[in-house]
Amino acid sequence: MGRWKPDARGRLEQAAMELYNDKGFDATTVAEIAARAEVTERTFYRHFADKREVLFQPNALADVLAHATATAAGPLAPLEVIAHALTEAAPVFEERAELVRQRQAVIAANPELQERELAKLASLASTLADALRERGLEATTATLAAEIGIAAFKVAFERWTDGPGRHTLARQIRETMDDATTHLTAPAGDGPRPPSGPAS
Amino acid sequence: MGRWKPDARGRLEQAAMELYNDKGFDATTVAEIAARAEVTERTFYRHFADKREVLFQPNALADVLAHATATAAGPLAPLEVIAHALTEAAPVFEERAELVRQRQAVIAANPELQERELAKLASLASTLADALRERGLEATTATLAAEIGIAAFKVAFERWTDGPGRHTLARQIRETMDDATTHLTAPAGDGPRPPSGPAS
Repeated sequence: MGRWKPDARGRLEQAAMELYNDKGFDATTVAEIAARAEVTERTFYRHFADKREVLFQPNALADVLAHATATAAGPLAPLEVIAHALTEAAPVFEERAELVRQRQAVIAANPELQERELAKLASLASTLADALRERGLEATTATLAAEIGIAAFKVAFERWTDGPGRHTLARQIRETMDDATTHLTAPAGDGPRPPSGPAS
Repeated sequence: MGRWKPDARGRLEQAAMELYNDKGFDATTVAEIAARAEVTERTFYRHFADKREVLFQPNALADVLAHATATAAGPLAPLEVIAHALTEAAPVFEERAELVRQRQAVIAANPELQERELAKLASLASTLADALRERGLEATTATLAAEIGIAAFKVAFERWTDGPGRHTLARQIRETMDDATTHLTAPAGDGPRPPSGPAS
């Protein structure tokens, strides 16, 4: 029925994601993943060190971010370099949108996996900061720009996974980075909440 | 010799931080902490659930951030509300600067503790975002402002712990937030690195 038949690795990822969502990450075994993917356990271990690595694969993302940051034509504002790099990285997620959404649901359901995910995002921030310094940016500015970039990416990513099909991830990233430079510094119609009055 | 003699809880914190730095977090036992603080193990467990909780105590920080965010006189730009809240929270750290620096060194030496710290910062970002929404800010703007605030706080905190005595934490926060709204959006004298030429 599907338009494409994934290879063993792809089938293992798909099977793992389905089981993690159905049974929970902790309750799923490698034997079950292999069985659903119709491969042997040995094949699983040829592709992944353990069941957690299916969720946290070393992927192309860090390389794409570093390369896009290094090669963006300058001079650019630091946040513009970051917006460019994140936008360039968007296809890494868009190409496998369904798997990415399933992965997010698995991680959202497990505090331990959430901590691992935060650590991975922190490591991406370091990669971005290093690449900005290589361009000649001062260290603190580079670090701050990279941290803001990852923060904006998290927001854009949530907007994208929450409203599938509405906008591309690349567009969500652009809009979120624009927010960061406009809405955030303009006075808002906000204020302290008035103290609660007597019940009406 | 000291100007003040801490109570049992303070002595336990001090003893734990020294041992974690000297021997490493993993190699330190609760018995050793209690012995160095000259209290019983039972006293340790009256104050802390385990040796990790000495580093990750539920503290006043989240409350201070939420209260300062809720009561900042508006209308203010979202990032100004955040800068105000973080500055108000600075004394929580400044009052116990030496202990805070020791704690940072312990966490920097242990990947597992680093993941826990990232999770704690993520939780503070949620607290800030909730408080901004209560002020009437739109949800995405609130989330993004909160994430940027925590990113700026991390940078300010590192500047402060790396250069003790140079500036107050409150001033580092102000300067970092100012960076976020100026340097980051102005074109920098940066650019792609030229391709490496033949060795000279």
